[in-house]
Amino acid sequence: MNIDRIRAAAERLNGHVRTTPLLHNEALDAIAGRRVWVKAECLQHTGSFKFRGGWSAVSALSSEVRKRGVIAFSSGNHAQGVARAARAHGAPCVIIMPADAPAVKIANTRALGAEVVLYDRATEDRDAIGASLSAERGLTLVKPFDEPEVIAGQGTCGLEIATQAAAQGITKADVLICCGGGGLTSGIALALEADAPALTARPVEPEGFDDVTRSLASGQRQRNAAMTGSICDAIVTPTPGELTFPIMQRLCGAGLVVTETEVKAAIRAAFDHLRIVVEPGGAVALAAALFHPNEITGEDVIVVTTGGNVDAAFFANVLTESA
Amino acid sequence: MNIDRIRAAAERLNGHVRTTPLLHNEALDAIAGRRVWVKAECLQHTGSFKFRGGWSAVSALSSEVRKRGVIAFSSGNHAQGVARAARAHGAPCVIIMPADAPAVKIANTRALGAEVVLYDRATEDRDAIGASLSAERGLTLVKPFDEPEVIAGQGTCGLEIATQAAAQGITKADVLICCGGGGLTSGIALALEADAPALTARPVEPEGFDDVTRSLASGQRQRNAAMTGSICDAIVTPTPGELTFPIMQRLCGAGLVVTETEVKAAIRAAFDHLRIVVEPGGAVALAAALFHPNEITGEDVIVVTTGGNVDAAFFANVLTESA
Repeated sequence: MNIDRIRAAAERLNGHVRTTPLLHNEALDAIAGRRVWVKAECLQHTGSFKFRGGWSAVSALSSEVRKRGVIAFSSGNHAQGVARAARAHGAPCVIIMPADAPAVKIANTRALGAEVVLYDRATEDRDAIGASLSAERGLTLVKPFDEPEVIAGQGTCGLEIATQAAAQGITKADVLICCGGGGLTSGIALALEADAPALTARPVEPEGFDDVTRSLASGQRQRNAAMTGSICDAIVTPTPGELTFPIMQRLCGAGLVVTETEVKAAIRAAFDHLRIVVEPGGAVALAAALFHPNEITGEDVIVVTTGGNVDAAFFANVLTESA
Repeated sequence: MNIDRIRAAAERLNGHVRTTPLLHNEALDAIAGRRVWVKAECLQHTGSFKFRGGWSAVSALSSEVRKRGVIAFSSGNHAQGVARAARAHGAPCVIIMPADAPAVKIANTRALGAEVVLYDRATEDRDAIGASLSAERGLTLVKPFDEPEVIAGQGTCGLEIATQAAAQGITKADVLICCGGGGLTSGIALALEADAPALTARPVEPEGFDDVTRSLASGQRQRNAAMTGSICDAIVTPTPGELTFPIMQRLCGAGLVVTETEVKAAIRAAFDHLRIVVEPGGAVALAAALFHPNEITGEDVIVVTTGGNVDAAFFANVLTESA
């Protein structure tokens, strides 16, 4: 994995990806005690950054391999990213999703033309299901994060951040990234190393699911005790990736860990002040920026709100609880 | 009023206004039966297009006049736009707001440093209050729509639409605009006339408050029977402006009128598919695009979602009702 692969992915994504805005609002600055810049990937096609990696991976296949089809497993955002990319390339697409994923994610994935296969997150092994279906139909598996072309695609978000930060005169800052397996975090870290070396990528995770933070602290890949029980479904992964962890270890600052209460308050703040819809797993970085000021350095902080695919009932509850 | 004044406003706004994205989503296309392009002005500074007109008006004043201060009356969005522009220019700012405006708008206006004076929308005359305060303190009144520099500022949104539509290869389309007094609609219409003459500006209003639609149909400025009773508080105005109406009459297509049920469904669709927060008055144009397909022509339709300043409790109710 290197910057050339990210730049190549950026070329393939050009004209297909949305350059998401870097939003700013004084009310958030007042809460955080520094300037907060929000890279709104919830406004990306399919509602999350995952479209970048999906397009990168699907577009990198040979046409012969691609026409047999692709398969992916995902709590929903990777699913939609791959499904939309596959459809645009005319490739069949199978998505393996946990049965407890938000209904909106399952519905949206089907609406994007994918065949959805559901599994039980607590008792079934999604990797085994994926491998078996891949072999049976000749599908190419697009892993959610531990795959070079996916990391390269997510890294294009980092290229945009480097350009947009420079345009705002931001020379030095922490870049907080909602982190599951580390595909986005490692991709952004590589892009910043090349194009904005004074910006430091830092992963953010929810309490109880802080495998990356603990892994960075200990120097060894750690596992989470549970795979369910978080509102941040999009970023619950068992352990950092084999490919992503060494990159994060080399380039990232320390991880940050936020509570579910902080996540909900961040969703509410994004609603009130930025008028964007952020899902829980996409709000942990903003939560860290707003509510963990002493763990961050510098006058500016950049956060990536990674996704917006949240069930309406949950979102309504967050608004009502915090009213 | 002419295009040169809009281009001059664009120069003063350059570096201060946010170029809002033109969003697109296939699920909305499926509902509408044509491609839907959403100019997301709810992502503008202060959460609505009104920042454009506010900045344009405040920046056009001489420094001597400006330092005595400005005053504006508004249901909230114009208030915030003028307040933020005034603060950035170091000008004192008084805002006269209806006492029944959404709490979030009152709070945000105060947070932007303005002195807020509340009045009763049913019994008091905001114009009289404004004129008296202006005279007393030497403040310059910034009218919400019937003011050339405000129309010019709103028109910069039309310049962006022309550029963004061309980039998407959209050569001919209706441009649906949420319409109160007609400042945005007339400004966009003038910009399109110059830069994209095959795009047609059309005002959209809520049922019962369709003064502009009836005025265009009859050729005479009509009045609304009521000034309260709509969820679309941002665009409830008594009658089209003296300056804006002749422009709309010369350049706009027929108005469209939508129901409150359609407005709520449009808010929900924007939540589900675009991950943006749109207020009722900012959703009427999207409602027309989605639910009045037979009143629109062409393969593409462009809508301006003009604002996102909505109370959380109302928004939660919309999500819950439509679940």
